[in-house]
Amino acid sequence: MKTFSKAIYTERRKQLKLLVGSGKLLFLGNEESSMNFKDNWYPFRQDSSFLYFFGLDLPGLAAVIDIDEDREMLFGNDLTAEESVWHGATLQLADLADMVGVDKVSSIDGLPKYLKPKTDIHILPPYRPENAQKLAQWLEVSVLQIASLASEVFIKAVVKLRSVKSPEEIREINKAVTCSAAMHKRVLQEAKSGMKEYEIVGMITGEAIRSGGNLSFTPIVTIDGQILHNHNYSQTLTDGKMLLCDFGAETAMHYAGDITRTLPVGPAFSANQKEVYQIVRDAHQTAIESLRPGVRFKNIHLLACKKLAEGLSAIGLMKGNLDDAVENGAHALFFPCGLGHMMGLDVHDMEDLGEQYVGYTETLVKSTQFGLKSLRLGKELEEGYVLTIEPGIYFNPLLIDQWKAEKKHSAFIRYDQVANYRDFGGIRIEDDFVITNGGSELLGEPLEVEIDALEAIRRTALSANA
Amino acid sequence: MKTFSKAIYTERRKQLKLLVGSGKLLFLGNEESSMNFKDNWYPFRQDSSFLYFFGLDLPGLAAVIDIDEDREMLFGNDLTAEESVWHGATLQLADLADMVGVDKVSSIDGLPKYLKPKTDIHILPPYRPENAQKLAQWLEVSVLQIASLASEVFIKAVVKLRSVKSPEEIREINKAVTCSAAMHKRVLQEAKSGMKEYEIVGMITGEAIRSGGNLSFTPIVTIDGQILHNHNYSQTLTDGKMLLCDFGAETAMHYAGDITRTLPVGPAFSANQKEVYQIVRDAHQTAIESLRPGVRFKNIHLLACKKLAEGLSAIGLMKGNLDDAVENGAHALFFPCGLGHMMGLDVHDMEDLGEQYVGYTETLVKSTQFGLKSLRLGKELEEGYVLTIEPGIYFNPLLIDQWKAEKKHSAFIRYDQVANYRDFGGIRIEDDFVITNGGSELLGEPLEVEIDALEAIRRTALSANA
Repeated sequence: MKTFSKAIYTERRKQLKLLVGSGKLLFLGNEESSMNFKDNWYPFRQDSSFLYFFGLDLPGLAAVIDIDEDREMLFGNDLTAEESVWHGATLQLADLADMVGVDKVSSIDGLPKYLKPKTDIHILPPYRPENAQKLAQWLEVSVLQIASLASEVFIKAVVKLRSVKSPEEIREINKAVTCSAAMHKRVLQEAKSGMKEYEIVGMITGEAIRSGGNLSFTPIVTIDGQILHNHNYSQTLTDGKMLLCDFGAETAMHYAGDITRTLPVGPAFSANQKEVYQIVRDAHQTAIESLRPGVRFKNIHLLACKKLAEGLSAIGLMKGNLDDAVENGAHALFFPCGLGHMMGLDVHDMEDLGEQYVGYTETLVKSTQFGLKSLRLGKELEEGYVLTIEPGIYFNPLLIDQWKAEKKHSAFIRYDQVANYRDFGGIRIEDDFVITNGGSELLGEPLEVEIDALEAIRRTALSANA
Repeated sequence: MKTFSKAIYTERRKQLKLLVGSGKLLFLGNEESSMNFKDNWYPFRQDSSFLYFFGLDLPGLAAVIDIDEDREMLFGNDLTAEESVWHGATLQLADLADMVGVDKVSSIDGLPKYLKPKTDIHILPPYRPENAQKLAQWLEVSVLQIASLASEVFIKAVVKLRSVKSPEEIREINKAVTCSAAMHKRVLQEAKSGMKEYEIVGMITGEAIRSGGNLSFTPIVTIDGQILHNHNYSQTLTDGKMLLCDFGAETAMHYAGDITRTLPVGPAFSANQKEVYQIVRDAHQTAIESLRPGVRFKNIHLLACKKLAEGLSAIGLMKGNLDDAVENGAHALFFPCGLGHMMGLDVHDMEDLGEQYVGYTETLVKSTQFGLKSLRLGKELEEGYVLTIEPGIYFNPLLIDQWKAEKKHSAFIRYDQVANYRDFGGIRIEDDFVITNGGSELLGEPLEVEIDALEAIRRTALSANA
């Protein structure tokens, strides 16, 4: 288990106490998660806010910060000698607490008592059902009510602190992104016609674990790139198709990377593929150049949408006044999702705390328009934010058919021309950035992104493997 | 998604109906499982009994067999066009049902109504908290009560059917074990001093996924082999140490393999390591030779324990009458677990249904003695059972200290000599077998197991890699 220095966690909790002001803050770590029977577990993943404030990467822990009493307490259970036969001798609870600057410990059974009287208790919204159940039991409410008891002041304080990444966090994220880029480089070298998508998934999963971490999310590796979160890997790579690869590693300390590249299965893109790729790449570059503190990310998203619409108009798929088209959401037929999201201990950072809190403000509410409603980040950027830029163009036959039947946005979309792209698939390009004083900085080792560079790698790799 | 033929599922359900006799049998498929926020999912794993009777490897499904009405119904939800943008166009519910011979479907919301009146409803014990919650809600009981409502007649019928593997199941398990053996062969070739345990884990995880399946359980890859279920991979491999590798693949259809080998990190075992290895190997061979229908597995376990005790006595670690030693559980200091377990769609097959039902009978109850209480399978073997044979010898310093302080079994254990093995670690050897008419058959491609054969591979591999 890797942790930052004690002082870092102590300082984070101090800032949190100042922001919340009073009450008891309850942090629930995660449990082991059952796969196909109780004791067959998925790899353990600690809760990210627990990691941020308490750093301990072990199951079965909880913690309370009592602001009024200025007391911090870690809850858990020490293993018995007999349990150590199965799971090894882990550190004692008191040693764990000491590693992260906490000086009081108790068995987990003592927690409910510690929450009495049940006034001014602050919780974060649970996303795992067993934690929702525990909270419901401890706070004596129904499990259906528990989400509504999440504390807004607590959520806002956690979001405020976790949003701005410190230098040691940037270093970890850099590591994660560099590892993610290395995984992509392997795919660029080794993908070839006849392979199954799951062979690529095996290769990159192995790489992520060999680096000492893991994947930061279930990878998307697909020749059906038009399906945004495709987790089916049963297709065979064939020449002429493109392979969309959207994946990343997380480090041993659980900081995420998240990169997407779309590559030709053969040695080169087709003329059509090149055209669409370049449109996405132009939108990607335009967005990157707009990154700086003080700019609303929603505006960068809309700028990228405009760029996409211009390109789609140039190749005859859109028409009319493109400012109007974007304002009305017509481009969302081809780009139905958001330009990017915060990234940190979670690949969609703090998504469990609520997108409205993480990506928006009291005066900037998330839109309900198709496309914009999937934009996770809208608000003004600040120095230290880490985010992804991931424009794309997707041709989803089901969505095309539905819109066409409804004549939706037919002032802006040339459905007759779009029909020629039904089997095109999808293209996405994604990189990760930190917002700096002057603008932004690319995280991780740079990974090839231009058409020429990708094709050069593919040509060499395929002739070497032939 | 791979399924067997329609007729196989129909026949399995027919047998089940005959065994249970009357009532409504409720099957709950699994949901996606959240990692660090709601929509960041672990790889989906379907419930094994759902797979066995309904074969559909997708989240969000449930099924009811109404025996009295002779009606089978599949519950789920079709994706909307908008959802297909994110997750692709999966088959419609009716098509899915048809694939496995079910002719009635309903949206999942319709399920509670279908369970009324709430009499003679049979459920299996839930092991995932969200499924416990759903059952509690549908059956209008508290979530804490739900496990106690599991139906014994339903459990027993499922256990009876799933215990005896059909030819098509044996073929799948063979595939899984062959893949598991190939993963082990790679470790035998590539492990070397200076590597981290997690590098091995990355390598074998990648192999399992590349084969089109996945791991069948969280792997154990450790130089601390004395910790039975060690999931910490942070240690460095060093010459002189042994690496215990206990892992397996599951196929795309979710049948498991499970193999253990213990290898020297350097080119050869030390003299001490060889001695202990040979004791474990002798117990392993003795157990294998005893496998046949009609024999109680508990007796084979005890026979293997006796073999271990004899070996430990020969090298001066045990003493006295060894029959008495085994009867009293003294050997459990070195072998605190069971000789094997059933294997099939789960690596510990049907563990969620209760070990008493799977591994014991009404007249043969699981022992509470330390060691024996971890023996998952005790009852008489039948043709078609698939199981593991996995004896081991472990030197756990914490357990040794505790027993020594208590003078536990000091008539049988030479604590003064055991002291020399405190840092030895542990050795386990495990293979998978199907019980046949005449005895048993090894599953999968054979994997080297003798000292000479292992050392020969290691010597060649290490000199090639040098």
